[in-house]
Amino acid sequence: MSVLVVGSIALDTVKTPVEEHSNLLGGSASYAAAAASFFSPVKLVGVVGNDFPDSEFEFWKSRKIDSEGVQRVNGKTFRWSGEYSWDLNMRETRSIALNVFENFQPKLPGSYRKTDFVLLANIAPTLQSHVLDQMEQPRFVVADTMDLWIETTRADLDALLPRVDLLILNDSEAREMTKETSLIKAGRRIRKSGPRYVAIKKGEHGALLFGDDEFFSCGAYPLEDIHDPTGAGDTFAGGIAGYLAGTVKTVHFTDLRKAMIYGSVLASFAVEAFSLERLRKLSTDEIKERYETFKLMSQFEVTA
Amino acid sequence: MSVLVVGSIALDTVKTPVEEHSNLLGGSASYAAAAASFFSPVKLVGVVGNDFPDSEFEFWKSRKIDSEGVQRVNGKTFRWSGEYSWDLNMRETRSIALNVFENFQPKLPGSYRKTDFVLLANIAPTLQSHVLDQMEQPRFVVADTMDLWIETTRADLDALLPRVDLLILNDSEAREMTKETSLIKAGRRIRKSGPRYVAIKKGEHGALLFGDDEFFSCGAYPLEDIHDPTGAGDTFAGGIAGYLAGTVKTVHFTDLRKAMIYGSVLASFAVEAFSLERLRKLSTDEIKERYETFKLMSQFEVTA
Repeated sequence: MSVLVVGSIALDTVKTPVEEHSNLLGGSASYAAAAASFFSPVKLVGVVGNDFPDSEFEFWKSRKIDSEGVQRVNGKTFRWSGEYSWDLNMRETRSIALNVFENFQPKLPGSYRKTDFVLLANIAPTLQSHVLDQMEQPRFVVADTMDLWIETTRADLDALLPRVDLLILNDSEAREMTKETSLIKAGRRIRKSGPRYVAIKKGEHGALLFGDDEFFSCGAYPLEDIHDPTGAGDTFAGGIAGYLAGTVKTVHFTDLRKAMIYGSVLASFAVEAFSLERLRKLSTDEIKERYETFKLMSQFEVTA
Repeated sequence: MSVLVVGSIALDTVKTPVEEHSNLLGGSASYAAAAASFFSPVKLVGVVGNDFPDSEFEFWKSRKIDSEGVQRVNGKTFRWSGEYSWDLNMRETRSIALNVFENFQPKLPGSYRKTDFVLLANIAPTLQSHVLDQMEQPRFVVADTMDLWIETTRADLDALLPRVDLLILNDSEAREMTKETSLIKAGRRIRKSGPRYVAIKKGEHGALLFGDDEFFSCGAYPLEDIHDPTGAGDTFAGGIAGYLAGTVKTVHFTDLRKAMIYGSVLASFAVEAFSLERLRKLSTDEIKERYETFKLMSQFEVTA
């Protein structure tokens, strides 16, 4: 089955202590769609300006990412520029220009409305809700969010949550949202506000998954060097949603366990190069190999 | 087989935002020996003063912990007093009185010298080396350490490392020791300074294990409430060393994986109450049950 992915599409300038690159494909939907496309066909929703390179539409085509839902409008594409600290653990936004994204209203093509799996990648919760409003009973809705929406549009986010099957957020966001120090308490508490499942990303420490009386914990792939952390979370969400859409009809906790690993695998590749460069040349064999490494690094009994 | 455990034996005063308790059994060897005793006979080495309660000797006896190597000398037992921050993530030492511990020179009874497994729980590296000097080729040496020794007696620690099979330390200590931000780089680098295996404890984020081209990552047991974090690391080390001594003759990476889980299980119980209170009434059935929970929370394929 396909997965509909909606989110931001941007042109990024990224500076790390080692390198700086401009006009890179970025945005939550770009990373998420590319990651999902390794597992299932993708229907992409977003907006770009007339400065957006045609080559990226070609890239989407090559990866079976349907771009009918990407509006190209007069003006400039959303631009973001950020700089990372020496250890890549801190990020500062140097500049942000919403441009055509400012008045973005996602409008789904008719062929998109019956998509079974949906990934609401990181954008304002009102836009995420607006996409769901246009859909005919999706089977499974994954939503990502960020601190900005927790701080500035909390009511909109709260209204979205009961419509979400799996909410993905990071550790500091989970703590901020619940005012709980314990991530275990935070994860369980967020479930009570609506989402059937909650995934908490912990960067180098892996991720946690909370379900009804069910719990899963996985580590992160042991990377020595990270080149650009941008989009790691979006890629993780994309890998999860894509794996589910491409593999199962009805999602069970067991499926989500594997999906978390595939999300982690994809994210571990994404950070090995700037922008989507590593994902562009990634092969399914490489994904399989790293998935096997996850098995080896997690198991402590030869028989399960 | 037995495991020799050497470390500090203390009477602690612990204050959390909720409770305060005084004259509690504490010290690295106390926690480690109790944890190890669930898996194998223990030979304990340490020093106490004449204020130390006889009842603790009775406790050791009841847990098959041989206390022949515990010297009782004139003076007061080592005393430590600490206070935890509201979220229990920060600890401040309020007072410390070495007392009889100041002139402690571990001296092994003859019956201890041939012990196959050794746990050098957290004490000064010179004392840890001094214990090894008195032993006849132990099969497997586990050593724990702390920031204090990395900062103040680094040369002594470096001299000990090549004699250690498994070094256990926490994330900030691993970073401090290597000046590496990446725990993956840190773990691999510490191995080059001597220990065949390195375990990095990450508290609520679980632990990592590094071997020769081998890597293992495990999460922490999902506890909602922690009552007293004191001794969690010592208990983790004790569980590991005890499990190995009680289960295997020659230690392979596969054994260390399971040992890490048992160490985590024991530590998860230890923090549920002050001092050793939870370990005192712990049953092997409870350990088995929590071990099964670790399997459930870690596996993502029904067949391994």
